Parts: sequence; C-alpha cells; structure tokens
Amino acid sequence: MKLYGYWRSSAAYRVRIALNLKQLDAEQISVHLVKNGGEQHSEDFVKLNPQHLVPALVDSDEHGEFCITQSLAIIEYLDERYVQAGLLPQKAKYRAVVRAMAQLIACEVHPLDNLRVLQYLVNEMDVNEDNKMKWYHHWIHLGFAALEAQIAQFGGKYSFGDSVTLADLCLVPQVYNARRFNVDLAAYPNIVRVDAALNELEAFKLAAPEAQHDAT
Amino acid sequence: MKLYGYWRSSAAYRVRIALNLKQLDAEQISVHLVKNGGEQHSEDFVKLNPQHLVPALVDSDEHGEFCITQSLAIIEYLDERYVQAGLLPQKAKYRAVVRAMAQLIACEVHPLDNLRVLQYLVNEMDVNEDNKMKWYHHWIHLGFAALEAQIAQFGGKYSFGDSVTLADLCLVPQVYNARRFNVDLAAYPNIVRVDAALNELEAFKLAAPEAQHDAT
Repeated sequence: MKLYGYWRSSAAYRVRIALNLKQLDAEQISVHLVKNGGEQHSEDFVKLNPQHLVPALVDSDEHGEFCITQSLAIIEYLDERYVQAGLLPQKAKYRAVVRAMAQLIACEVHPLDNLRVLQYLVNEMDVNEDNKMKWYHHWIHLGFAALEAQIAQFGGKYSFGDSVTLADLCLVPQVYNARRFNVDLAAYPNIVRVDAALNELEAFKLAAPEAQHDAT
Repeated sequence: MKLYGYWRSSAAYRVRIALNLKQLDAEQISVHLVKNGGEQHSEDFVKLNPQHLVPALVDSDEHGEFCITQSLAIIEYLDERYVQAGLLPQKAKYRAVVRAMAQLIACEVHPLDNLRVLQYLVNEMDVNEDNKMKWYHHWIHLGFAALEAQIAQFGGKYSFGDSVTLADLCLVPQVYNARRFNVDLAAYPNIVRVDAALNELEAFKLAAPEAQHDAT
C-alpha cells in the first residue's frame, strides 16, 4: 500500500493511526501542502485524486491498483478489508454513535478549520489575523462542547467505551490541531483525558506529525 | 421512528431519501432552524442532540429509545439495520468509492456552505453579500469539479453504477442547494444528468424540501 499524506494533515494523521493499529505497512509519500503552491494541485497527484486533497491510499487486489480518497472512507475500507483491531462496535446503534462522533469532527470542525479554508479567509476574503483566529476558535469550541457531552455519555477509557474506535482516530488529530492554535481545553476534561490515554499507545505515537519523515 | 429535521436542511433531506427508499415510516418533527434564534438550540432539542444540529433520528430496540445524529451515520445505521434497498456496493473497494463521493459533499462542500456558516460570515466576520456569495460558489465549484470527475469514472445511470447509493443521497440535496444560490452547473454534465435521473424516483420526489409539511 501507499499512503499519500502530509505530516501536519489531520486527515492523513487519522489514517496513519489506523494503519498502525492494524499493523499494516504502507509506503508514506509526502505531498507538501504549502510548497510550490501546494503539491496536491500537481498534475500527477490530481490524476490520482481529483479532489486535490490528502490523504489518498493506493491499495491493490487481483485486478491491480486502485486509489481510495477521504480519510473516513479509507479507514472504513481498511476496517472492512483488514479486520484485525476492529474500529467499530458490533451493534448497529453503537456503530452509529461512533460514526457520529467521528463525523462531528470530520464534518463540523475540521472542514472549517483546515489550512485551505484559513488561507481562503485571509487571501480572498480580506479577513485579518484576529478574525481568522476567532473563526478557528469558534468552530472548535462548538464541536468540542458537543463531543465532550457525547464522551460523558458513551465514553470509558476512550471516546466510546474501553476500546479504540474510529472516533478516537479523529479526536487525537483534532486536539493536536487545537493545541497548535492555542485553544484552551479546560472546559473539556473528558476530551483531554481520552486524548492523553490514546497518546500512550504506540500506534498513536508513531502516527504523530513530528514522528513523520517529512516533518520540518 | 422519529426524524427531527427541517425542510430546507440538506442533511435532513439525505435521510428523508433513505427512509423513503427503504420504505420506513418515521414521524417527521420540524425543528425550525431560523425562527426563535433557531429551535435547534432549545433546551429540549439539545438534550436530544448536544450537537445543536438536524437531523436526529430516534429509533428503538428492546432496551428502549435511542437517538442517532449526523446524517451519514444515520443513513449507514438504517442501511445496516434495515437491509432492504441497500445503499452501498458489496465489495470493500467500491463501498469506499461511494463513501468517498458522499464525504466529498458532506465533508468538503456542505460544511462550508450551510446556513450557520453563512450566517457567521455575515454576522461575525463583517463579510458582505458579494463575498458571501463568492465564498459559497468557490467551495461548491471545487467540490463539484471533483465529483464530476468521479462520476465520469465510476458513474452509470447514477453516481456509482446503475443502483442508487449513499453518494446519490448526498448529490441531490447539494444540487438543490446549488440551484438556490444560482450556481451555474454547465461544467458538470454528469452531475446534472444523474440529478435529473434521481429526481424521477418517487423516493426522491417525496423527500424534496417543497414536499415537506413545514415548507413555507
């Protein structure tokens, strides 16, 4: 397998954790999101992923190679095809709870606070640095307040019970990102506690941005 | 079942289509997203869904009622528990393609262009009407260009092959939304064609915003 990613991409970070938990080997190919106007816009990469986004996973079967995009789709693919270290509960209603927690981050927080959106606010909308930070903090506090309530209801050692799930793979990169932007996490004791417990695990340590070969 | 939604919510629209395709009855409860500062922020609703968002689905099993949030999590829940009219292909790699198309809309377009974000731009960031529209169009064109390429590669009668999938449930509400904001769709012949084919189906017609009891 080949994983096209970038050390600081939260979405690639999620997939790296999944690969580690499942003890799957993937060649890590760095797509620099800033250099040269963003290598994700290069002709070769866009041929692979017309979404101009990392991560993209290349895997193969008896028919040859194929590419899968979108971090949650990649992780569910890995979870279906490589079933060791399952990332979703067995019961449909609990699978839904875990997916909803993951999507709360992946659909409500990260899309608003990722690099390309912050760049667009500054470069195209004349938003100043203060308002950019206000924007960032607004969406992360909304999302984390909801996530905190859901972990209080469903969490154990981790976001949902005592096993690592898809929700945890989204939580840790988002907390990492929040800390980069100096978000005060005091109001989210459950998130902070779960994040700390997860970061004790080897699979999470090895997936951390600073542990990647393209980290600068 | 009870579906808390709103006629114009794209995410609730997705779930209405799934319920119709699976011929499941659900009581439709309207949560007005604008009136009274947004009924999704009411104490009673937030108790049900701490995310302050529609849709929310209440279903029950032998242990009683429970609530599921996030439209894609709700739809996958329905697809797992009520298996008629399956919304994902059988093979893991194709399930991933369909999920990635759905997430392209649900994680890259809709989160940036939904009501609460547009309101925040205008009310909190002093963005004027022209720039608000520029913002809306920017993200939808980026997303639709990628989706167009993916339908060209994988599509048939619908977004993925000739059966209705999760991707189609995201496509139709997003196209509906784009038309509301006068987005020129000429560059996306596959999207326009698939949207038209889907809107011939009874399940899609009955789920349309204007067909809902709370439409104004």
